[in-house]
Amino acid sequence: MSPTNQDQKERLFTRKWRWLKAFPERLKAKACEVSANTKKIAQDDPRRVIHSAKVGLALTLVSLFYYYQPLYDSFGFSAMWAVMTVVVVFEFSVGATLGKCLNRGLATLAAGALGVGAHHLASLSGHIGEPILLGFFVFLQAVTSTFTRFFPKIKARYDYGLLIFILTFSLISVSGFRDDEIIELAHKRLSTIIIGGLACVIITIFVCPVWAGEDLHNLIAVNVERLANFLEGFGDEYFKTTADGESTDGKSCLGEYKNVLSSKNTEESLANFARWEPRHGHFQFRHPWKQYLRIGTLTRECAYRIDALSGYINSDVQVSLEIRSQIQDACTKMSLECGKALKEVASAIRTMSKPSSADRHVSNSKTAAKNLESLLRSGLWENAELLAVIPAATVASLLFDVVKCTEKIVDSVHELASMAHFKTVDRTVSPEKEEVPHDIEQLKPVPKIDSPHVVITVHGSTSAAFPENGTTPHQYY
Amino acid sequence: MSPTNQDQKERLFTRKWRWLKAFPERLKAKACEVSANTKKIAQDDPRRVIHSAKVGLALTLVSLFYYYQPLYDSFGFSAMWAVMTVVVVFEFSVGATLGKCLNRGLATLAAGALGVGAHHLASLSGHIGEPILLGFFVFLQAVTSTFTRFFPKIKARYDYGLLIFILTFSLISVSGFRDDEIIELAHKRLSTIIIGGLACVIITIFVCPVWAGEDLHNLIAVNVERLANFLEGFGDEYFKTTADGESTDGKSCLGEYKNVLSSKNTEESLANFARWEPRHGHFQFRHPWKQYLRIGTLTRECAYRIDALSGYINSDVQVSLEIRSQIQDACTKMSLECGKALKEVASAIRTMSKPSSADRHVSNSKTAAKNLESLLRSGLWENAELLAVIPAATVASLLFDVVKCTEKIVDSVHELASMAHFKTVDRTVSPEKEEVPHDIEQLKPVPKIDSPHVVITVHGSTSAAFPENGTTPHQYY
Repeated sequence: MSPTNQDQKERLFTRKWRWLKAFPERLKAKACEVSANTKKIAQDDPRRVIHSAKVGLALTLVSLFYYYQPLYDSFGFSAMWAVMTVVVVFEFSVGATLGKCLNRGLATLAAGALGVGAHHLASLSGHIGEPILLGFFVFLQAVTSTFTRFFPKIKARYDYGLLIFILTFSLISVSGFRDDEIIELAHKRLSTIIIGGLACVIITIFVCPVWAGEDLHNLIAVNVERLANFLEGFGDEYFKTTADGESTDGKSCLGEYKNVLSSKNTEESLANFARWEPRHGHFQFRHPWKQYLRIGTLTRECAYRIDALSGYINSDVQVSLEIRSQIQDACTKMSLECGKALKEVASAIRTMSKPSSADRHVSNSKTAAKNLESLLRSGLWENAELLAVIPAATVASLLFDVVKCTEKIVDSVHELASMAHFKTVDRTVSPEKEEVPHDIEQLKPVPKIDSPHVVITVHGSTSAAFPENGTTPHQYY
Repeated sequence: MSPTNQDQKERLFTRKWRWLKAFPERLKAKACEVSANTKKIAQDDPRRVIHSAKVGLALTLVSLFYYYQPLYDSFGFSAMWAVMTVVVVFEFSVGATLGKCLNRGLATLAAGALGVGAHHLASLSGHIGEPILLGFFVFLQAVTSTFTRFFPKIKARYDYGLLIFILTFSLISVSGFRDDEIIELAHKRLSTIIIGGLACVIITIFVCPVWAGEDLHNLIAVNVERLANFLEGFGDEYFKTTADGESTDGKSCLGEYKNVLSSKNTEESLANFARWEPRHGHFQFRHPWKQYLRIGTLTRECAYRIDALSGYINSDVQVSLEIRSQIQDACTKMSLECGKALKEVASAIRTMSKPSSADRHVSNSKTAAKNLESLLRSGLWENAELLAVIPAATVASLLFDVVKCTEKIVDSVHELASMAHFKTVDRTVSPEKEEVPHDIEQLKPVPKIDSPHVVITVHGSTSAAFPENGTTPHQYY
């Protein structure tokens, strides 16, 4: 053996030994990571832990079918359908669970009836024709149902139902070939599914229910508020009036809007689930969920503009302080008033009351926009180098867009308020607060409903405060 | 009866009669709509029709278990698991089907083994302790597995496996309470699942396969191309050099980019499916799918800027022709060169060759940006009213951003090319084409690979052309 070979072997051995020696440490680190992850997932949304316990409860309850002798005698092997139903149907929100239950139940009923019919028809065609005809039925049904699942509207609401339709039809029509007690089979399957489904529905509704509608409602409010946070902080951050020490705190809330950019799918699935939900809390059965999607779309459009704006906060090409200070007041006012309007609108959605002062803030921001326009028209920067002005001009221009977007969002929330009969809130605002001065020192958050300057009168059935939990709605699975 | 009452009744009757008379027409209209929809869905992606036929085929084949006597004798009632597996597991793409098959198979194996163990352990604890212990096991297992499904990484790849794990464990451990042949049950379930899964895998791979990886690859290329189309058309559209008659044609391709804004979820699920797929076509087993997601993210960032840009095409505040004509050349050049670079990159992804001339286009666009900068620095608009200049300045500024985004996209595609060992294409471009003059008349699409001026030498194993189908990848379900 050559010395180099020996050397290589030794090195390999040393490496392997090190790897082995470090293994317990790595395992420990991995375990720490997993436990930290678990803690984070549970803390982000404690309803996840409750949901897990609910699934365990429902499953254990349904297992009674196997334990309890008389029930077993009447259902026998079919009782496993109940267990299956619980596992497959139990979803995080009430709407998703109800939707799956109804889909499963109705599809089983329809496919069972059709399957029995197909079996009967096939049995008339003799010993040779029967399997051929049954195979043809199964093929035809599978092709049609599978293709139907491609229709976007059907896919959104009835996808699971079609899957169960294919499944039940195939099982019933084909197993019938062997079993003459086909109707009993269909009946057993349906009744065990109903039992499993009922267990799920009862537990999901009565044990700490998670309403998809409420989550959608909160998500839209949170998203609007995220834009508001950006806009309220943007002026300070762009014109760097705050001390450097504070700016890190500001940035974290400036980055929040990024979550809005990709919220489309979550919103759509929540809206689809919400449509299955019965009346709950402040929400009717036919609550205008579609209007929430419209608000969501407008919010995203505004977020795209804001994404473009955010590029200028820490841009390489910094505008000279002189130029910036000239437009500072007007720009800060525009962005701040938009932020206030959006915050007002978000809190109106949360409390399900008509937004009262949002229009005032919008018109304030429009006035600020007009001021900026006339400022620019007055030849403010005539002596400045044009290139240095461009970033500032772009910021102004994007802010004009944001004002337009904000107006649209406020309008769509007004529509929602009248569609969903939000309660009217009369606010007697003390007159000296009516006109917000242009001064930067006045930058402070929109008056909270419980602020001493605001008197609330609620016209409506329920005045219980809507929970203001700012948690990110759970990622549905 | 008062005459008004009579009147009302008559009117109601007339309305009902009209509704009834119009009913067949409405039914016909509805049928026409459905058939038009069906045609559109089938034409948008003909693979949907093939997929439906494949599902029908697999299901009919598996039904043979019931028809064919000897097989029925050995599997009996368990054969229905094979039918269920086919219905539940057969997905549109190979990757999704394989992922579900593997998840189902492995989860059944693991849960079966654990279930048998739990059953054995419980049976040792006597007649009273057994159901209590079994219930406890089922509860514990359901809670843990359900909570594990909330981990984002696990959810993305193993969600279905965990569902099947809960299902199988509950069925085996609980049904074992009744059935002493528990190991036989587990064995039957596993083997029928393998048979059903194999039928799906064989049909999905060998009958017109749909590869999620290929779809992701095409989707990324198409998305980059959509941005390129916008940028190539933007100059003409914004500066309105084209005749009015043509502008409608241009606008349709200018709106394409909107599809890019919300493509995140599709891309992510395609990437998750692609990771299950074996080597196919030009794609290795460990193709760098994550890099596609990175390109996708950069593409979306660019799309946000483009969305802001598009607001200026038909803005109310139109810049005077004089001002626009001054920056027209430079802006058009910037946007056009970015478009060309992106188109080159998109076609490089499609043909899986290294992008050769994209860098040249990027540096051209950077040169144009510098030209615009010096143009602006020269005090071009000193006499113009500043307010009138702002939209033009914003467009210029957004175009600067787009150039930066384009550079990032090109860089990330270069990374992809080296990661995935794209083939090198030597292009001997005729020298007189190297310098594209600033003239607008020269605006034409990037030279195609088969253009007479370009000589291609392919270094690589396969030089077969990659299919250039520009169809939008199917919406996965």
